[in-house]
Amino acid sequence: MVAGIIGATGYAGAELVRILSGHPHVDKLSLASVSFEGDRIEKVYPNFLGRISAVLEKAEAVIAASDVVFASLPNGVGEPYARAAADKGIPYIDLSADFRFDDDEETYTAWYGKPYVHPELRKFSVYGLPELNRLRIKELAAAGGAAGKPGPVIIGNPGCYPTATSLGAFPALVKGIAAPGATIIADAASGVTGGGREPLQSFHYPECADSAAPYKVGAHRHTPEISRNLAFMAEMVPGTVSVIFTPHLVPMNRGILGTIYIPLAGGWRPGGVSAGAPRPPSKEITAKTDEIRQVYTDFYKDEPFVRVLPAGVIAATNRVRQSNFCDISVHLDPMGTTAIIVSAIDNMVKGAAGQAVQNMNIIFGYDETAGLNAVPALF
Amino acid sequence: MVAGIIGATGYAGAELVRILSGHPHVDKLSLASVSFEGDRIEKVYPNFLGRISAVLEKAEAVIAASDVVFASLPNGVGEPYARAAADKGIPYIDLSADFRFDDDEETYTAWYGKPYVHPELRKFSVYGLPELNRLRIKELAAAGGAAGKPGPVIIGNPGCYPTATSLGAFPALVKGIAAPGATIIADAASGVTGGGREPLQSFHYPECADSAAPYKVGAHRHTPEISRNLAFMAEMVPGTVSVIFTPHLVPMNRGILGTIYIPLAGGWRPGGVSAGAPRPPSKEITAKTDEIRQVYTDFYKDEPFVRVLPAGVIAATNRVRQSNFCDISVHLDPMGTTAIIVSAIDNMVKGAAGQAVQNMNIIFGYDETAGLNAVPALF
Amino acid sequence: MVAGIIGATGYAGAELVRILSGHPHVDKLSLASVSFEGDRIEKVYPNFLGRISAVLEKAEAVIAASDVVFASLPNGVGEPYARAAADKGIPYIDLSADFRFDDDEETYTAWYGKPYVHPELRKFSVYGLPELNRLRIKELAAAGGAAGKPGPVIIGNPGCYPTATSLGAFPALVKGIAAPGATIIADAASGVTGGGREPLQSFHYPECADSAAPYKVGAHRHTPEISRNLAFMAEMVPGTVSVIFTPHLVPMNRGILGTIYIPLAGGWRPGGVSAGAPRPPSKEITAKTDEIRQVYTDFYKDEPFVRVLPAGVIAATNRVRQSNFCDISVHLDPMGTTAIIVSAIDNMVKGAAGQAVQNMNIIFGYDETAGLNAVPALF
Amino acid sequence: MVAGIIGATGYAGAELVRILSGHPHVDKLSLASVSFEGDRIEKVYPNFLGRISAVLEKAEAVIAASDVVFASLPNGVGEPYARAAADKGIPYIDLSADFRFDDDEETYTAWYGKPYVHPELRKFSVYGLPELNRLRIKELAAAGGAAGKPGPVIIGNPGCYPTATSLGAFPALVKGIAAPGATIIADAASGVTGGGREPLQSFHYPECADSAAPYKVGAHRHTPEISRNLAFMAEMVPGTVSVIFTPHLVPMNRGILGTIYIPLAGGWRPGGVSAGAPRPPSKEITAKTDEIRQVYTDFYKDEPFVRVLPAGVIAATNRVRQSNFCDISVHLDPMGTTAIIVSAIDNMVKGAAGQAVQNMNIIFGYDETAGLNAVPALF
Repeated sequence: MVAGIIGATGYAGAELVRILSGHPHVDKLSLASVSFEGDRIEKVYPNFLGRISAVLEKAEAVIAASDVVFASLPNGVGEPYARAAADKGIPYIDLSADFRFDDDEETYTAWYGKPYVHPELRKFSVYGLPELNRLRIKELAAAGGAAGKPGPVIIGNPGCYPTATSLGAFPALVKGIAAPGATIIADAASGVTGGGREPLQSFHYPECADSAAPYKVGAHRHTPEISRNLAFMAEMVPGTVSVIFTPHLVPMNRGILGTIYIPLAGGWRPGGVSAGAPRPPSKEITAKTDEIRQVYTDFYKDEPFVRVLPAGVIAATNRVRQSNFCDISVHLDPMGTTAIIVSAIDNMVKGAAGQAVQNMNIIFGYDETAGLNAVPALF
Repeated sequence: MVAGIIGATGYAGAELVRILSGHPHVDKLSLASVSFEGDRIEKVYPNFLGRISAVLEKAEAVIAASDVVFASLPNGVGEPYARAAADKGIPYIDLSADFRFDDDEETYTAWYGKPYVHPELRKFSVYGLPELNRLRIKELAAAGGAAGKPGPVIIGNPGCYPTATSLGAFPALVKGIAAPGATIIADAASGVTGGGREPLQSFHYPECADSAAPYKVGAHRHTPEISRNLAFMAEMVPGTVSVIFTPHLVPMNRGILGTIYIPLAGGWRPGGVSAGAPRPPSKEITAKTDEIRQVYTDFYKDEPFVRVLPAGVIAATNRVRQSNFCDISVHLDPMGTTAIIVSAIDNMVKGAAGQAVQNMNIIFGYDETAGLNAVPALF
Repeated sequence: MVAGIIGATGYAGAELVRILSGHPHVDKLSLASVSFEGDRIEKVYPNFLGRISAVLEKAEAVIAASDVVFASLPNGVGEPYARAAADKGIPYIDLSADFRFDDDEETYTAWYGKPYVHPELRKFSVYGLPELNRLRIKELAAAGGAAGKPGPVIIGNPGCYPTATSLGAFPALVKGIAAPGATIIADAASGVTGGGREPLQSFHYPECADSAAPYKVGAHRHTPEISRNLAFMAEMVPGTVSVIFTPHLVPMNRGILGTIYIPLAGGWRPGGVSAGAPRPPSKEITAKTDEIRQVYTDFYKDEPFVRVLPAGVIAATNRVRQSNFCDISVHLDPMGTTAIIVSAIDNMVKGAAGQAVQNMNIIFGYDETAGLNAVPALF
Repeated sequence: MVAGIIGATGYAGAELVRILSGHPHVDKLSLASVSFEGDRIEKVYPNFLGRISAVLEKAEAVIAASDVVFASLPNGVGEPYARAAADKGIPYIDLSADFRFDDDEETYTAWYGKPYVHPELRKFSVYGLPELNRLRIKELAAAGGAAGKPGPVIIGNPGCYPTATSLGAFPALVKGIAAPGATIIADAASGVTGGGREPLQSFHYPECADSAAPYKVGAHRHTPEISRNLAFMAEMVPGTVSVIFTPHLVPMNRGILGTIYIPLAGGWRPGGVSAGAPRPPSKEITAKTDEIRQVYTDFYKDEPFVRVLPAGVIAATNRVRQSNFCDISVHLDPMGTTAIIVSAIDNMVKGAAGQAVQNMNIIFGYDETAGLNAVPALF
């Protein structure tokens, strides 16, 4: 089948090109780019020479030629293409934020500064975090389609930070580990590809090399997406899960690392350590950590891309590099009040292009791991 | 005067050499190294060629030759040298953890695995965070000394993480911004020099380049030091300030970045935003942030090395590189419940050697900034 | 079939594990490690969790269980394993230098400090640079084997620097571009994984980050390997091709970049520019560059892993990252006397594990690209 | 005295601000910026907060207020400011290429694409490489000035690559080590700050991190500057020293590393090694290397900023970081035909701002090292 990519020359678009070029069910790629229309993709990315070759077309031509369309565009410009794909009756997988908020237009508008262009598309659309919405994705794909041929479902492919932090927090919320109503703090770091291909001062090598820097503290657009995911997963009223989210830029190419602080239900603390100066982790702490880790392991036992790490291994971005895995490690503060969950993904794969392909696999009824079997690169 | 350095070939020791070589009151350096005894320092660090030259001696010879002794040794081995310096009646500035816990031997032993060798030295010793203990440092220095000649004071020079996070949290605790009894979360990142000069797997270039990784989650020895500092500053009973601390290793040479979450007194939240999905910061949030920033600015107005950054500037490690500054920026989560304080230092300067020199300046009555006027390097 | 790897926990060994785990003709891996015998490979490299699992055995057990053996060991220790594989009658692919010098024991001994342990094995062994020795590799594999089952051939898998620089210089030597007898200068840079997994001072993050440093100037063991390759390819008397080789360490994980200076036959210079100050490239220079590039393109037109880049694209290590490609770009100095050839490989793939798998493919008669189709990662 | 800087917000300009702010003879800085006119320098570079403060003015105001003017502008725009400084009768130190070619307007035009705007200024101007032109700089400064007050000398401050490579090659040319007429190859690497402050695709973090890449191969503008320097130093006819120069971009912030290949006079080779495969360095090679190193050491014995490294130490950029040093190490290829000289500078200091201040010191008769005594930072 033919997979189309609009915005193929941005970083997430180019990563889609790379992943889909090795996908067992994709016969052909059809690529669009506004900036490089008429050029060949291998001219823009010489990495592809000898492996991938295609002329960059207009978006309309790509939609016309494709059985599924991926859009990797800036926020706020892609809805017309989604409309066109829906008109043609094919799935549309949107990597921007435009379809991540379902029908909560108010929240979308508050953070992204514009209303929906095509509110009617929301009945076809679903937030594409498979670990949260796999069934709903399948249902929607089946709804308008025929056997082996999905209908015009639209996927709001999740943000990179929300993917890492939501997956890290889900079991704690669902399985009663988290204190109800408690504020969850997600402190996260991103590699610089997260900022995209356009050269900006913040991503100029000398400005971000050899430095760690928070940005948009208390004001990042992924906050409402995370908060919504957690409430939805925990079957709670939206807005009742308080999330504080702080992103940091660190000098690495790929990766999202989330360190998530979740107050324990009942304010659990091992007896006798509740007062006085902190002490190294007691046996009770270690036992409780093992117990929570087991809950996490069980929770994700059927998920092909979530690895709950064994005791002694801490999640790190270089363990998931170039793969679609989300690694999760489970820890406890030594005072016994708070679970500390570390979650790591490759921002370009599970945080963008890989997850988009995972969604395509679900929609088309392929093996969910098709084209996504890369072993994490060691370096 | 003659400044002696024991452990001069470790990273913090060598940074001391570099800083003290430009100090206006230091006439001569006397250096000791176990690993390189008999070699010249400029052979171990060719950076020093043509600028600094000295044969590496035994520790005993250095103490005998010096007017002040800095010790940059592994934890647990330096007390006999402190004893010798005290016997000679000169100040001893210890960069290890051995004198950071005053007479709380129990906590020291719980985390560092050994009792005090010379408990009697604790009456001369003080934790050397000038912003916390400047007066006590001066008093102790004066106690056993004469005019212009300090007595045998011993400084427990603070850890790098405790310096950054304590300075970031102090005003909130002292000035009633923090909710009494609330847990403070300090999520922090360190450059790789923080791990010292010895080659270990964790600090092998291919293992830590292009990656972000937490370590010792819920089990780092700096936790009790931070907790104690906050309680002491807030004049609270030790152990009553709960701190959760998570260190991360990021691929940079220098720097500590602390992102500190402090629940607000009264659980302050701007009216009307308390329910529903998160929204971008409101005017009330911005106003409250400005108010807290002003408290911070006032609190540190006489401190020569703390810079509370103006609105719009976020602390980052590359803003304090190679300097003794601690940069602090003040933020609020958009739900209005929690202050987010970002604190950045150079781990080798304010986090180690620079702060040690600052302590020397205080002890000897020099201008506190003598030898520490470096403008942060731009890159 | 079963592929065995001795030294599976070193960097090149682990990369072999990763590549072979995705090879279409490899059914099972059998792994050995001296350092981690009895552990599981995924404990040493948690990247492999959920993808690759194997207990690390003794080398003897691996040889007994395998149809082909890869050895990724330090120089000078592997010959007994080669002997054992030959006794069993299976191919042995050695990533060390022990079989790179054929029967020139004198040169091997001069640079590696020891004589051959099993000189008799040399009749089975061949230097495994496919672009140089493909036919000889096939012949040797066929010699002692049966249909579809190769005999006990031993491959001396090339060094990373010799691979990049030899491929860059071959066409110039073979096609008469190079001045006969002229000295060829190969100035090259390596990523830090080239130094292996063992933590050493030189590869300690703070010592090599943010720096460029030559090493072993005029004394690197890859010099005779390069010189021999060039002479052999050009069908010249060994030792008659003078090569000056300077390696540099630069702060990147992967990659070898070679910049190779080859004086032109006849000392070619475009008319009229021979005297006076240098000028930007003239039309004649550009035309001559195009002409040489065409020679290179033709020379490598059937090679599956050599990409001669089009005009305007310069070889760089991030264009071949994680792939088995060798990228080559062709340039001329503006005075018209010297070809400047830039050659880039991933040191862990074409420079080690990938090339070893390429050799296995040739030996077994598989498609030479089997398991080696990775598109170079963009970042 | 007042030092003025035009173009103070570019990288070299800001580094000048930092260095001059600690200069013992500079009382005040007057700063100009086109991009940020009216802003404060510490707003553009918050690193300067609390240390350096100035409003960014127009260039004209800076010239009017200053006793010396530094210009850190793009090539081709600064001549009118030089004219204005000359009219005022004060020194003008230009960090662009506009005054690097003396009266060789033809070469300047060939590489920079425009003629001189003020050819008459060339009688006041001199190429400011102190190790080459110190006397001429002093003479010109004295010519139009009075005691303690220099006249309107104009300095063409050298390029970063030409500084490193010229200093590395000078002794070989002057002292008869180099073969007369031989081509000198300078293979060099630069940190990314060399590309300046403007965000461009090439310097976007994900495009240059974890990679080594040559650029402008055979076409870099520093080639004629290097060639001219060498000829001038060797008192040869311009254009008779052939230089091949290849720059590379490597992922580091600061530094230039030059690896320079200089054929030896008489094609020196130690007896008996002239044929056959390369061998490790012989005693004769080591002795010859020591001999050449001694020539270098003697040549630079009075230079305050050139360090010829002892045997066993190889020049590297992290040894000169943040300092005005040029480190040089001397090597020989093991075949004995070619000297390999490695030269390292900090591109922002000796390669730009530091050298400019060195020129100011010479012009004003200050100690040449005033303000330039920084010990190279260890990391």
